[in-house]
Amino acid sequence: MTSQRKNKRIRSLHQKKFRDNHGLFIIEGLRTVKEALSAKALIDFVLTTESFAIKNSGLFNSIKIETVSELEMRQLSPSATPPGILAICKIPVFNSPNMNKNFIYLDGISDPGNMGTILRTAVWFGVYQVALSKGCIDPYNPKVVRSAMGAHFYLSWLDQIELKELNDHFFFGADQRGQTIKEMNKKPGKWALAMGSEGHGLSDIVKSQLDQTIAIPKVGKGESLNVGIAMGILLQELTR
Amino acid sequence: MTSQRKNKRIRSLHQKKFRDNHGLFIIEGLRTVKEALSAKALIDFVLTTESFAIKNSGLFNSIKIETVSELEMRQLSPSATPPGILAICKIPVFNSPNMNKNFIYLDGISDPGNMGTILRTAVWFGVYQVALSKGCIDPYNPKVVRSAMGAHFYLSWLDQIELKELNDHFFFGADQRGQTIKEMNKKPGKWALAMGSEGHGLSDIVKSQLDQTIAIPKVGKGESLNVGIAMGILLQELTR
Repeated sequence: MTSQRKNKRIRSLHQKKFRDNHGLFIIEGLRTVKEALSAKALIDFVLTTESFAIKNSGLFNSIKIETVSELEMRQLSPSATPPGILAICKIPVFNSPNMNKNFIYLDGISDPGNMGTILRTAVWFGVYQVALSKGCIDPYNPKVVRSAMGAHFYLSWLDQIELKELNDHFFFGADQRGQTIKEMNKKPGKWALAMGSEGHGLSDIVKSQLDQTIAIPKVGKGESLNVGIAMGILLQELTR
Repeated sequence: MTSQRKNKRIRSLHQKKFRDNHGLFIIEGLRTVKEALSAKALIDFVLTTESFAIKNSGLFNSIKIETVSELEMRQLSPSATPPGILAICKIPVFNSPNMNKNFIYLDGISDPGNMGTILRTAVWFGVYQVALSKGCIDPYNPKVVRSAMGAHFYLSWLDQIELKELNDHFFFGADQRGQTIKEMNKKPGKWALAMGSEGHGLSDIVKSQLDQTIAIPKVGKGESLNVGIAMGILLQELTR
């Protein structure tokens, strides 16, 4: 591929349509590229700026790295302030969902920073399957990928899940009108945890399927907790 | 003030220097403006777009609202996608710190989204005093304000605090090499909680002052938890 065609390809991956077409996505930043390598992700190629390459020479012996100018990186990167290292990775192809494992159900999460933090937190707590409702932001959106810090290389997606398939899971949902975290079922066996959208919370169809609704009591002020924070607190409870 | 001068004033508040000079900051979004009103914040004036005013007519009876065009709002707003309502508020002037209360110590938190979520979470858990080390992002930065969702109207800042003044507080810090959350001192009396920067964690000077260092055990994968998520989990433990 000529350099010009390659650059066009990279820029096309800023958009979901082309990520889906090519089965590729962009990762950026040293920590995420390191995580991709340690997770044995399929990396197509890596670009760094000249100054990044000088500062980090000898860092990656196992992969071929191409160097571009700062200007070119700014044109290729989806970030306003590119971290200086960018890689193109294959979107993993998943086997069928493992319904013997716990998972997270995300109901209309639209903010990329929230989605990324949610994925990073799920993986930290050993939850590797995530179901996405319609209306969720594409998890391979570059802003999501940036805040997920490499979580993508451990996750699989349950895109087509029907809530009625969840009979074997104890289904928790986060909602301010639920029982307090002290009353949470601490031995649920196999479970799923539903988190609702930033603006509207859980949809009625999801609420109707829940086995237990959990609230994190407000000690002070404010309308709500951030959805990622709420999920982190509930996952800590479920895995303690 | 002429409209042109007013617009110049608003745009100047995108920058810290002018926020400090004028003692004013920008809030945006319906939820945050509502929170400001319910907290009896000092609001200088409110602007909405015409379409926002039509959709939300009669919403605010108690405050005077000026209407601007969509184009003007895009020029005035610090956001890439302005929510349609913007207000200018006075930066509260604080009394001296109340050293009989708990507080959060933020050590070099530089990401605006993290800072905002941290402030929102602190206020949710009833912690209203925050100390900021050098190198923290300005808490009145518009991106911080946006993700803090009105927390600013309940908070006071301990900018000049000396760590040695903390002798009366049990000083927790979050660090992956600490004791597990199960071993956390659950009856610390008056406490402070230090959270370190996204890239480097707690500085050595802070670490040397801690009474207990707490880690949130990794069940799965990843290099670290997001700092806001980690703080949320620790505050839930401290206030349960």
